[in-house]
Amino acid sequence: VTRLVGVIESSESSADLLGPTPDVRYVFVNPDTSPPAEIFDVEAIFIWNVRSGFLREHWARFERLRWVHIASDGAERVLTPEVAASDVVLTNSRHVFDQSLAEYALGLMLSLAKGFSITFAHQTEHRWVPRDGETLSGKLLVMVGVGPIARRIAQFAKALGMVVRGVGRSPRAGDPDFGDITDATQLNELFAVADYVVMVLPSAPGTEGLVGSEAIAALRPAARLVNVGRAVTLDQEALCAALREGRIAGAALDVVSPEPLPADSPLWNIPNLIISPHMSGDHTESLQEIAALFQQNLARWQQGEPLLNVVDKRLGYVPSERP
Amino acid sequence: VTRLVGVIESSESSADLLGPTPDVRYVFVNPDTSPPAEIFDVEAIFIWNVRSGFLREHWARFERLRWVHIASDGAERVLTPEVAASDVVLTNSRHVFDQSLAEYALGLMLSLAKGFSITFAHQTEHRWVPRDGETLSGKLLVMVGVGPIARRIAQFAKALGMVVRGVGRSPRAGDPDFGDITDATQLNELFAVADYVVMVLPSAPGTEGLVGSEAIAALRPAARLVNVGRAVTLDQEALCAALREGRIAGAALDVVSPEPLPADSPLWNIPNLIISPHMSGDHTESLQEIAALFQQNLARWQQGEPLLNVVDKRLGYVPSERP
Repeated sequence: VTRLVGVIESSESSADLLGPTPDVRYVFVNPDTSPPAEIFDVEAIFIWNVRSGFLREHWARFERLRWVHIASDGAERVLTPEVAASDVVLTNSRHVFDQSLAEYALGLMLSLAKGFSITFAHQTEHRWVPRDGETLSGKLLVMVGVGPIARRIAQFAKALGMVVRGVGRSPRAGDPDFGDITDATQLNELFAVADYVVMVLPSAPGTEGLVGSEAIAALRPAARLVNVGRAVTLDQEALCAALREGRIAGAALDVVSPEPLPADSPLWNIPNLIISPHMSGDHTESLQEIAALFQQNLARWQQGEPLLNVVDKRLGYVPSERP
Repeated sequence: VTRLVGVIESSESSADLLGPTPDVRYVFVNPDTSPPAEIFDVEAIFIWNVRSGFLREHWARFERLRWVHIASDGAERVLTPEVAASDVVLTNSRHVFDQSLAEYALGLMLSLAKGFSITFAHQTEHRWVPRDGETLSGKLLVMVGVGPIARRIAQFAKALGMVVRGVGRSPRAGDPDFGDITDATQLNELFAVADYVVMVLPSAPGTEGLVGSEAIAALRPAARLVNVGRAVTLDQEALCAALREGRIAGAALDVVSPEPLPADSPLWNIPNLIISPHMSGDHTESLQEIAALFQQNLARWQQGEPLLNVVDKRLGYVPSERP
């Protein structure tokens, strides 16, 4: 039996990436043209462009929809109250971005420790200005978020000789990568001793503003903060004030509010702040890996097997199994 | 018995760092003032500033000199033919820079893979331009040089999922970090398959121009090269030509010729080339660690024990013990 599967395209067509699939007819929705009528007959939707409002806008018209797969890790843009309340299954592209994101976060930490943004600016000015860098080795890294991306960052950090602690939903001791995991009630205490903080939180119930002004005020003057999760989880204004007033040593944000950051935003010029355009997870093989993961899930769906990466719609993300 | 030990200062006095040492009287030579006469009576010299020509200039006047310790890893500026031919023992500050240099080299690889210099330039222009990064995971890293710094870089690279090969003086199989180590006769062959090349060679007999135009011509268009060793070991002109002509994807040089690089050098503007001002090894604790290492060696010297980090004056560096 042939089943109809909708594909909400991003700017480019994904037909080549998906190729023909046995017993599936794809209905492509191009963001720039009006959708074909049969899109509302699909049983499953694969959303390349999670920023598209198509599903949200037309939600009530999808009477046969059973499953939505998204090409991202973060589900917040698709997980509307209507989607959450429905029995439509939502799956994400968990793990596709883990390695790229973890490498990127490590690169941002090293950039801050070694002052790369200063060195690269000196290069454009043709100035030779040797300085002392810092080593990451021996420094305390507090990971806010203990999912698979955070875990990989912790593994890299430990390989470099950092000491790692984790802040997660449920406190527990003896994690192989994070050591002791505490919950958010211990945030200020941990921030007061952290050399580096790396945030990898989803936008989900309970994470908004989780790193707030009090936690930022607890950081030491030598501390540096990196956010590769979601902007909404951090009090951006409090961070910027701390940077402006020299109360912390530096920060790097791959996620900011709003995105894209307008050219006239004061954020671009905050001292000791690296702004990166929400690209930490995107890598040259992302699209292929996303397509392969979706088709793996599609085969499971066709055969009635359990799907991979099912989002807990109450939590807002795929809960981790403990290692 | 009190022994005279000369200290060739850098721009700042190191008296506080060294402090009083039992049975030692330090004779400090300040680069900006004329030296005290008793400097030529010393039995040992500690050279903070290896760029100073003091030892070379006055070599013939040191009649009692038995031992020279240098505050750097590279010995080439101190190891003149006269020093090499003498029976004065030369020791270096091996290992002080290993961690900092290895982190820096990893940071440069990540900068190249993720395009940080482009991102930071976009920030100064207030431009939000997401792009795909590359992952280091799965890529082939060829280490040119297999000393302790290279070994640590290899360990970090493997922790990130890179595949590592080494090029060293003597070929051997089954090294725990480099796998198979080949000698320089295999350089072109390895360069033809490398994704990343990291050079950590000393300036020593046999290393000048070791990575020459043929090796650079063998690199693939996607390849990137990092040099944190010595500029003289690389054909800089050939590398720049390859970058200008887009024959390789990028490079990062922490060591260049000449140093400091003059403001009017064309090197500053080569596309996809990061210039860093010979600072990869310098870190906030370097001076303390160098002073501690020197004083450890000084205690050994006073007690007639074997010194640490004795430079093989024929090789030009401290040969590694195999792990």
